[in-house]
Amino acid sequence: MSGKVELSEVAPRDGLQSIGPFVATETKVALVRKLHAAGLRRMEVGSFVSPRAIPQMADTAEVLAAAKELPGLECTVLVPNRRGFEQALALRPQRIGLFMSATEGHNRANVNRSRAESLAELAAIVREAPAEMRVRFNLSTCFHCPFEGVVPEAAVLDLVRGIAALDPAMEIALCDTTGNAAPDQVRRLFRHAIAEFGHRFAFHGHDTYGMGVANVAAAYDAGCRVFDAAAGGLGGCPFAPGATGNVAMEDVVWLFRRMGVATGVDWPLLLEAADFAAGIAGALPGGRMRGVPAARRAA
Amino acid sequence: MSGKVELSEVAPRDGLQSIGPFVATETKVALVRKLHAAGLRRMEVGSFVSPRAIPQMADTAEVLAAAKELPGLECTVLVPNRRGFEQALALRPQRIGLFMSATEGHNRANVNRSRAESLAELAAIVREAPAEMRVRFNLSTCFHCPFEGVVPEAAVLDLVRGIAALDPAMEIALCDTTGNAAPDQVRRLFRHAIAEFGHRFAFHGHDTYGMGVANVAAAYDAGCRVFDAAAGGLGGCPFAPGATGNVAMEDVVWLFRRMGVATGVDWPLLLEAADFAAGIAGALPGGRMRGVPAARRAA
Repeated sequence: MSGKVELSEVAPRDGLQSIGPFVATETKVALVRKLHAAGLRRMEVGSFVSPRAIPQMADTAEVLAAAKELPGLECTVLVPNRRGFEQALALRPQRIGLFMSATEGHNRANVNRSRAESLAELAAIVREAPAEMRVRFNLSTCFHCPFEGVVPEAAVLDLVRGIAALDPAMEIALCDTTGNAAPDQVRRLFRHAIAEFGHRFAFHGHDTYGMGVANVAAAYDAGCRVFDAAAGGLGGCPFAPGATGNVAMEDVVWLFRRMGVATGVDWPLLLEAADFAAGIAGALPGGRMRGVPAARRAA
Repeated sequence: MSGKVELSEVAPRDGLQSIGPFVATETKVALVRKLHAAGLRRMEVGSFVSPRAIPQMADTAEVLAAAKELPGLECTVLVPNRRGFEQALALRPQRIGLFMSATEGHNRANVNRSRAESLAELAAIVREAPAEMRVRFNLSTCFHCPFEGVVPEAAVLDLVRGIAALDPAMEIALCDTTGNAAPDQVRRLFRHAIAEFGHRFAFHGHDTYGMGVANVAAAYDAGCRVFDAAAGGLGGCPFAPGATGNVAMEDVVWLFRRMGVATGVDWPLLLEAADFAAGIAGALPGGRMRGVPAARRAA
């Protein structure tokens, strides 16, 4: 093994939040348990968001309670605003995930406020978060915006400068929300961000156009060591027209296995979890490895 | 545009040769014409191989004759041995493609001789090829061999040294025959090969495990500027168990479009050709872009 990566599984949140049929809480918990059994130790289990805005996330408190029983699992819950933060203070996930967009148009469509307003509100949360609650800051549309097209790197780095200054230890995810990033763009942004702000970045990618694995490989090449992915390639963003499917966790794990990079994941159990995820009623699966004949993908 | 690449379309040869039902000559010619109409200017149109060994290639002479009518198209025909070379001398494709494997096990399974025997025979052909007939030397299993596993880079570079010395202008393709290469391995081999032997390399990749586009991006990053791909992701190698599907030309073109690299390809016409290729009776299509809804992939 020539290195290792940290993988954050996002199927229970990003993989499910946009689909219509409500997924029973026991199904969500079963998914979390299977992913944990496969060796995944970071997981986005839900979102403290209004159930009117995203009904699928209405049972995040129960899913989190069950997930917190699992040994060694770091649970992340998304926190869109102060109200969500208050829920987090009460229910104590090990990590909260804040988010805003790198582009004004997407931020307004997604959370109905300006980037400056978002940053001010989230900065206050970062300051107030208790020491034992880790914070991940997700910056959406870092590469391509459904409203503004290709995002200039300098604009992203300017925003990252403000975010990085909030807390020198905070993880920052540079997100390809629509799957439109190109590998050279990903490599360049991560190289520059790491050179200026150190090794504190994660990559969150989608596989809408089949570039997901190439983008993960490019981010890794640039020094990124934390990656989001969803078992079964579930996912999509209801506020980003054209965005479907997080990059599949099993595709990402296959990539890193081939590269000799340690993931801590049990391959057959991950495939089981991915099949389970893809079989959830209403789920929108993607990715490649589930389609590869069993005899071949065992290799 | 920040650069350009040369794309060599291999669906008419690598995309079809392994499938059972004989594809009518007029269908093959129609495919070649559609690919040419989409702007592709290099194409592997067939193989001068025994029709007993590969019945699907029995009509290569006719397909070549039709392809040679198309303006600006460089036609490549594979030449496995001296007998094939004699056919090439008679029928005059603009380029011949020689091939041998980087590993002893695969070379014996594929052409039933040792690598030393293959190299000696092919070296004689390189010497005898008339000046106006370009030669591409394809080196199979440069990354992973179905019989020998991961291929050591030093062994490949040793072989390349012998091949490069045959003719300083000859293009050499480093081929991921099984789709098992990892992007870091591809980047490393191309970097080292280009550093030692200059810019004369092409990458031929398969997408068996969804790594095809990531590997193309890695080879490009290392300086490679010539790429093989098959419209519709057709393909497979009858002598490499587990190898299915060349990387899809439309996925590769999408990648380069996103990277701002010129390909000379007309996007809607390529998608038409890819759909035509995928619809050929018995064809084994793959790739990602054909599955993306039309409204999205037009972007």
